[in-house]
Amino acid sequence: MASTHFEAVPELASDADATGRDLIVMKFGGTSVGSTQKIKDVARRLVAAREAGRRVVGVLSAMGDTTDELIRLAHEVSPHPHPREYDMLVSVGERISNSLCAMAIRDQGHEAVSLTGSQAGIVTDTSHSKAKIVEVRARRLHQELDRDRIVLVAGFQGVSTDLEVTTLGRGGSDATAVALAAALGGACEIYTDVEGVFTADPRIVPDALKLATISYEEMLEMAATGARVMMARSIEIARSYGVPLHVRAAHGDTEGTWIREEANLVLEKAIISGVTHDTAEAKATVLSVPDQPGVAARVFRALADAGVNIDMIVQNVSAQGATDISFTLPKTDLPAAEPILEMLAKEIGAAGVAYDDDVAKVSLIGAGMKSHPGVAADMFEALADAGINIEIISTSSIRVSCVVRASEVERAVQAIHERFRGYAEERVNA
Amino acid sequence: MASTHFEAVPELASDADATGRDLIVMKFGGTSVGSTQKIKDVARRLVAAREAGRRVVGVLSAMGDTTDELIRLAHEVSPHPHPREYDMLVSVGERISNSLCAMAIRDQGHEAVSLTGSQAGIVTDTSHSKAKIVEVRARRLHQELDRDRIVLVAGFQGVSTDLEVTTLGRGGSDATAVALAAALGGACEIYTDVEGVFTADPRIVPDALKLATISYEEMLEMAATGARVMMARSIEIARSYGVPLHVRAAHGDTEGTWIREEANLVLEKAIISGVTHDTAEAKATVLSVPDQPGVAARVFRALADAGVNIDMIVQNVSAQGATDISFTLPKTDLPAAEPILEMLAKEIGAAGVAYDDDVAKVSLIGAGMKSHPGVAADMFEALADAGINIEIISTSSIRVSCVVRASEVERAVQAIHERFRGYAEERVNA
Repeated sequence: MASTHFEAVPELASDADATGRDLIVMKFGGTSVGSTQKIKDVARRLVAAREAGRRVVGVLSAMGDTTDELIRLAHEVSPHPHPREYDMLVSVGERISNSLCAMAIRDQGHEAVSLTGSQAGIVTDTSHSKAKIVEVRARRLHQELDRDRIVLVAGFQGVSTDLEVTTLGRGGSDATAVALAAALGGACEIYTDVEGVFTADPRIVPDALKLATISYEEMLEMAATGARVMMARSIEIARSYGVPLHVRAAHGDTEGTWIREEANLVLEKAIISGVTHDTAEAKATVLSVPDQPGVAARVFRALADAGVNIDMIVQNVSAQGATDISFTLPKTDLPAAEPILEMLAKEIGAAGVAYDDDVAKVSLIGAGMKSHPGVAADMFEALADAGINIEIISTSSIRVSCVVRASEVERAVQAIHERFRGYAEERVNA
Repeated sequence: MASTHFEAVPELASDADATGRDLIVMKFGGTSVGSTQKIKDVARRLVAAREAGRRVVGVLSAMGDTTDELIRLAHEVSPHPHPREYDMLVSVGERISNSLCAMAIRDQGHEAVSLTGSQAGIVTDTSHSKAKIVEVRARRLHQELDRDRIVLVAGFQGVSTDLEVTTLGRGGSDATAVALAAALGGACEIYTDVEGVFTADPRIVPDALKLATISYEEMLEMAATGARVMMARSIEIARSYGVPLHVRAAHGDTEGTWIREEANLVLEKAIISGVTHDTAEAKATVLSVPDQPGVAARVFRALADAGVNIDMIVQNVSAQGATDISFTLPKTDLPAAEPILEMLAKEIGAAGVAYDDDVAKVSLIGAGMKSHPGVAADMFEALADAGINIEIISTSSIRVSCVVRASEVERAVQAIHERFRGYAEERVNA
């Protein structure tokens, strides 16, 4: 195979399964490679996998705060660093960690080579600092693997179709790892500072359960509603190419959580996979909007053009020819959204815009809820019993989300998790 | 022009002069780019040259101690870092400084682009960590310059004929700058923390004079005998391709020293260009060597094979069939040289080997001494008048060097400089 298309054209087929699963891509995040000692530990893990007979590709993030430090330098030099130069700068962190790891592996008696994103054939589009992977040209990777080498690939970066260095934005190293697993036909292990995917945040629900498996679809909903384990983009690549993902702790040998095809799960019992929450969103309400066709489209088109990510949208029932439109958006997008909304409110004759950043979202995820009516009602009841008011509701076929007061979100998670604990335990013990 | 051959095949012709000298390569060392503020200052210098109508290429070293810090990390991970991975690691420092500088230039309203050694077409041999430039493939450089951009090139690095990242070793950024000036047909300015080339080290001879011009040959002898301004390799590239070099201070606008063809100098007066000294060498003596053909060859072949750089060699007159062979070598090469010498001494039946690292070398350089007999005698007299004993003497057509006790080297420099001050003043005022 010369190449495989990824994020930009995910509909193309992959030959991921053609070579079997003896190949493993092991990805380590920044805290797992935060010191030279930790890099030597990572090297030992990679060597152990090689000695167990696997072909091994390692993807390391930059050490600790290296990338933040580079970003700080950029902003000292320039208020708005040029995107192309910014990527030249911030992509060096991964080169440091991966070359150090290759040295450590060689000292442990194995062959290793570290490759930049460009050398590894990670081809992206031309959107600097948020590039998407379009192709993996795996020729060099195959060569190095065929030479019995452990191959280290600098995550978070690639080379654009214009031959410039690009970076992949948030979650970029995960995307690199999953794309490599897809192109090479392997499984992908994500080593992180949590032990796997839990039925709720263990800091809020101390007896939350670690899931042994979860489907791509459920994991996508978990990621979209606040679970911080992985970002949706990497899960989407994994789903498109059928890459089995294993999220596990960087220290110790405990099994983590496998993310894979729904068909592999015991679906009858898999009603609920978890409760997630997100405090990073704000609520905006456009007040007294004239109830005319095209008004909502105008508002959300303008926000989309400005790159604002809208999540839940609610339009109240119209009364006397005017209505309120509420929606949630990331708090970080508020500065971009506010001037657009103020302008639009005037143009469309609305009474004004109200903002509320004291909200939080709590969600219940489960592929099984498709075939089990009443899950949403159970969730609303649990919140009512706890005296928690629901401000906005939105649902998908495998998710129910509610916006509540930020001060009440922890109690909301606890109440919902308690209500569905029986299902979660059945699933984990299935 | 597609390419020009450099260090590996310096005998090939360059077309450096074909495009005139409107192009300037400006190289800045690590202390000149040690902070983001200093990088902004460098950006202003590059912009000023562009606004004066020049086409401008900047070559920046890594910021301050960045490279030392990377080397420290490598040695924390591995006692003997793998050369290929070492180069992947230590080459990132220049990428940081050059991309930051490109950002700063853009903020000052000019177009700029930073290129890695590879992107700039710096092709080297495959000797990791001490690669030599074999070719500059200047296509991308010409493209960027033709787009009216200030082009920043990461110094000290290139891409090997095997397509691996290489670094050029000590003095590598200067070599990059001079090779670019040769390939593009420009002049080269080396911005550094000294104001130019002096007739002696101003810390030892406070009234030493700054030379306005010096020939490549004289500068090569100065570099070889302890002047720290530039390393011989870059001067050799400049000489091979007729690149005019201007060594000057990174701060202020004072003219520095031009290094160029001898023909441009006022030769009749240019008897002496300077007094240099070097305390980094040690003396080794193989004692009572049997006086047979081939013995010296054997000793120095074995040392050369081990990469030991021998400088001055003296073989004393043979007495009773045995003789002493003395030579100087860098103190840093002593650990490599000692076991070889001990073994050789036994094999050839010598009495033993004596080491002396308490020596220093003082040299007098001047293209004019070819046609002025008596310069060496004047120098020896100056040392004798100061009561300084000479242990080894070696000469070239434009240099006389003497090994003296380390404790006497400053007085030696002062005595010789005082003796030849008249010549130096004539030259500077010529």
